[in-house]
Amino acid sequence: MCKRKSPDILAGIGDDAAAVKTPRKNVLITSDMMIEGIHFDLSFTSFYQLGYKFLAINISDILAMGGDPQYFIVSMGLPESYLSVNVEEMYSGMMKMAKKFDVAVIGGDTCASKNSLVLSGTLIGSARKIIKRSGAAENEGIFVTDNLGDSAMGLVILQRTGKKVRKFNSSSARSRLIKKHLMPEPSPLENITGVTSMIDISDGLLMDLGHICDESKVGAVIYKDRIPISRELKEVAGRWNIEPVELALNGGEDYALLFTAPRSMRTSAVRIGEIVRKGRFIVDEKGKKKSYKPEGYEHFKKKFQISKSK
Amino acid sequence: MCKRKSPDILAGIGDDAAAVKTPRKNVLITSDMMIEGIHFDLSFTSFYQLGYKFLAINISDILAMGGDPQYFIVSMGLPESYLSVNVEEMYSGMMKMAKKFDVAVIGGDTCASKNSLVLSGTLIGSARKIIKRSGAAENEGIFVTDNLGDSAMGLVILQRTGKKVRKFNSSSARSRLIKKHLMPEPSPLENITGVTSMIDISDGLLMDLGHICDESKVGAVIYKDRIPISRELKEVAGRWNIEPVELALNGGEDYALLFTAPRSMRTSAVRIGEIVRKGRFIVDEKGKKKSYKPEGYEHFKKKFQISKSK
Repeated sequence: MCKRKSPDILAGIGDDAAAVKTPRKNVLITSDMMIEGIHFDLSFTSFYQLGYKFLAINISDILAMGGDPQYFIVSMGLPESYLSVNVEEMYSGMMKMAKKFDVAVIGGDTCASKNSLVLSGTLIGSARKIIKRSGAAENEGIFVTDNLGDSAMGLVILQRTGKKVRKFNSSSARSRLIKKHLMPEPSPLENITGVTSMIDISDGLLMDLGHICDESKVGAVIYKDRIPISRELKEVAGRWNIEPVELALNGGEDYALLFTAPRSMRTSAVRIGEIVRKGRFIVDEKGKKKSYKPEGYEHFKKKFQISKSK
Repeated sequence: MCKRKSPDILAGIGDDAAAVKTPRKNVLITSDMMIEGIHFDLSFTSFYQLGYKFLAINISDILAMGGDPQYFIVSMGLPESYLSVNVEEMYSGMMKMAKKFDVAVIGGDTCASKNSLVLSGTLIGSARKIIKRSGAAENEGIFVTDNLGDSAMGLVILQRTGKKVRKFNSSSARSRLIKKHLMPEPSPLENITGVTSMIDISDGLLMDLGHICDESKVGAVIYKDRIPISRELKEVAGRWNIEPVELALNGGEDYALLFTAPRSMRTSAVRIGEIVRKGRFIVDEKGKKKSYKPEGYEHFKKKFQISKSK
């Protein structure tokens, strides 16, 4: 277990509950459950990668609320066939991610499970100011903190080649895309001053932007040619006859932050559109504006013949 | 969802994370996972009872740290065969317990599961003063907040008769014992001033007292005839040729609090023994002192031929 924040951990595992000190009274809590065969497929991911990703997606949720992730409590249900080395690998992936964001893993309950590996985690954070999905207003800019579509392309490669990747090769575009899928990096926003609404992109840009529009009761315009696309995605997608921007719009599991703020905001994030009074539009490369419906993961899966779990 | 503490709930389900205000900086967190076929058996428990018990055991953990339970986040993995009415039943059992302790259920994530129902819950609480297992000192008294052994007797009845009980009959001793097993009531201590160590009895009195002794590096003496045993347990156990005190010592799942404090403490809890420098002893009805080893749930299960899950 990570003990880096030990002065703030008043009681750890082994007591009835963990006890921690929080610097602020606004406490953020996110919980996720991942079940083998539903949310992950052990023929594509290693235990190390799974642990890394499981904490990463929880961290991303806390960042999306404007918070600092602090304490992670994880429960695992393990079928009999699992080895303790599998659990250790999973923990070490988790700890790798924990260190990057100074998260203390304070509880690690394991119990028996019948057939599938079950992971359940709760990440506690705190925030000075909480940023919800509901604060976007007309005329504000729409921003993203990272390239989009890489993770979806990585998944397509994994599904089509059917191979596990244990070591990533940073000089291979393919390998880097797969890594973005198996070991996503949460993408924090260095300064949240002025941010009016925020969400992390897990279901896909259009789908998650839709959540902001729904909660804020506004519309949005996105400019296709402003969406940040990586060199790797352009290279590989081109060869596979896939439209990169399509993966960026609907692919999902990017774990970049999508937020709204005054258009003039100084930020390293990329402005890709504006909030309007109502409607949802995409402006294409030729300046043509079209209304859209988000397609989301299910459609994406069908289109690219992805059969199994994410 | 319960919205009774709504002024303190800054963001609920539907955002990336739940956000709450805590009155104090000492935050308590407890997490539990229950898997069908391992931790519960749907041939004995209804969904309503399961939801009720699942929150109850989490509340008991927070009480055992000297805290106030506040926010419950629950994730459920549901096999396809489950009906939404099952989930609603489970929630309504949970809400019944939540109301008793003014707990707000702020998140209810459900996802698909392959074969078994999976429940994972995290309960957040806060405490002015945190009471651990490690504070017991020589000469202090050992106290319990409730009768012991009822739940274990209830389980024996369920296992031997093999019947589900949907409605409890308060004039039947058997029915009341079964209720203590299927729908345990957390047993709060009204005033924790002076309490030096505390734990909730889930594994059995001797086993859990052992945890206090281990953590506090002390020994204990228990007086058999001081252990509070209910009238119902005496009545039913007698008829089934079972020694009630045996269930009270080793049965478990009582969810009473076991704590240490100065012997003179004014409390409605029952003093059953004393902390000594070292060793673990039971004094029987004739005043004879014997060293003991806790037997715990596994032994108990064997002895009473309990085959399936708790």
